[in-house]
Amino acid sequence: MKIQFLGTGAGVPAKQRNVSSLALKLLDELNEIWLFDCGEGTQHQILKTTLKPRKISKIFITHLHGDHIYGLPGFLSSRSFQGGEGPLEIYGPVGIKQFLQSTLSISKSNLLYPLSIFELKAEGGEINFSNHWTVTYMPLEHGILSYGYRIQEPDAPGELLVDKLKEYRIPNGPIYGQLKRGECVRLEDGRILEGKDFIAEPRPGRIVTILGDTRYTKTSISLAQRANLLVHESTHEASEAKMARAYFHSTSVQAATVAKEAQVEQLLMNHISARYIGKAVYQLQEEARQVFPASYVVDDFDEFDIHY
Amino acid sequence: MKIQFLGTGAGVPAKQRNVSSLALKLLDELNEIWLFDCGEGTQHQILKTTLKPRKISKIFITHLHGDHIYGLPGFLSSRSFQGGEGPLEIYGPVGIKQFLQSTLSISKSNLLYPLSIFELKAEGGEINFSNHWTVTYMPLEHGILSYGYRIQEPDAPGELLVDKLKEYRIPNGPIYGQLKRGECVRLEDGRILEGKDFIAEPRPGRIVTILGDTRYTKTSISLAQRANLLVHESTHEASEAKMARAYFHSTSVQAATVAKEAQVEQLLMNHISARYIGKAVYQLQEEARQVFPASYVVDDFDEFDIHY
Repeated sequence: MKIQFLGTGAGVPAKQRNVSSLALKLLDELNEIWLFDCGEGTQHQILKTTLKPRKISKIFITHLHGDHIYGLPGFLSSRSFQGGEGPLEIYGPVGIKQFLQSTLSISKSNLLYPLSIFELKAEGGEINFSNHWTVTYMPLEHGILSYGYRIQEPDAPGELLVDKLKEYRIPNGPIYGQLKRGECVRLEDGRILEGKDFIAEPRPGRIVTILGDTRYTKTSISLAQRANLLVHESTHEASEAKMARAYFHSTSVQAATVAKEAQVEQLLMNHISARYIGKAVYQLQEEARQVFPASYVVDDFDEFDIHY
Repeated sequence: MKIQFLGTGAGVPAKQRNVSSLALKLLDELNEIWLFDCGEGTQHQILKTTLKPRKISKIFITHLHGDHIYGLPGFLSSRSFQGGEGPLEIYGPVGIKQFLQSTLSISKSNLLYPLSIFELKAEGGEINFSNHWTVTYMPLEHGILSYGYRIQEPDAPGELLVDKLKEYRIPNGPIYGQLKRGECVRLEDGRILEGKDFIAEPRPGRIVTILGDTRYTKTSISLAQRANLLVHESTHEASEAKMARAYFHSTSVQAATVAKEAQVEQLLMNHISARYIGKAVYQLQEEARQVFPASYVVDDFDEFDIHY
């Protein structure tokens, strides 16, 4: 599981940062990529990465501001043009369906793959996928409906304790499978083994929380609770808390406070105003680290492993 | 008068070429820039040029395919965000208004300048601007309504023949203005001068023809008649005339044939398929030059002066 940032800027594209999009790479887990937001030029950014549009199977939209959705019609059309045939699901606020139907129909774009658009409940909810992954979403505070998403990998069953079996001098064979399924097994020498004694604890799935644009809000903390990774906007520097509140955005310190209170492992800060370049970006990061040391301001194309 | 290409590719963005857009720079003439088409990422391309979004006063859309319009909502929003206050006029096929109203309203984009959208007549027509510039538009052949535009600069009144006045030993003074206005003047020495004898022929305005995607059609020739510059798509190489016809596009040789039959001065070929790179682009150009020597395949950011 990896995360790669495609656009880390705020509001308008700048030379250093494109508008919002990021890819959650679940290639080892599901052979899929999930996209979060799709600002204008996202498909151009993808051209500069190893991401394959046909592997993108789901797109989650946090909110309907242009810098988060204007790249969608072009991405969808190009995915079709480039031979993407697998189904694509889009999740987002009410209005995303009309946006796509209108843009695609006026431009006579015929997609050669099945497209499903799911408009989410304003009050929040949970999406349970058949592969046991779940996505919880909640409305944040951004003037317009803006979702935060909490992505939960299913817990992995405990692994067979092969070293312990060797200690017990149990030879490899069908018996390993029986024990792994938790069965009770009687050996030829009379010993009785309980499967549960040879299976490690289940490994809890990883949690990634990706928030749309928002003011500081307790909802963010609840969505990010003990996440392995939190992506939080940081449009403003710490001293601009008043302005951040007025414009429904967050400061570096507010992002770090959410990370700290939610006890996450790592905070990645995006949606950086184009006013911050060079040392000023470093300053945003330092402000956050005063509150939560594992804070990073991300750049376009930065990629991170998400560890257990 | 200059023309700068912002996207010279076909259908989908590629590393070498973005999707369609070009800027007609009328800075010396009108202190304005007119944009033709606005594919996704046009505002990103503009960031790499000296073009100022607030100077862009008119946008002409040739047709509603996504690679020609998906950059519009983002460009309009950013122009506002960056302090553009001057009015903006958009001209294009029926449907462009719904496209913009839908995208801008769903994304809650409030533009801080007056935006006027003019949907053009399907059968073609003429737009006469108050500054005496005219734009003639005609439908081409592209499966969906696709316009060609012929932009006509007004003729300039003839200049005062200062050298001739010096030959006649007429000293500089108010009399120059009287003659320039075509008046009849009696000198102190009794000589009578007619303004018309000291004014050069009026200088005909320049003509630029910019065509949307199209098959080879006689309409292109009529729109391009004796133009100083013709911009014609060249999606295919000469040998693919059959495919070009099937997909409502043109070959290099067809573009050059239009240029030759219309007796234009220069042909710029755009909308180049991403299949053509390096030497293959050179080949497209050579094919065209066999028919019309002043043919050029253009790249993104190429800029040309448009001479009288």
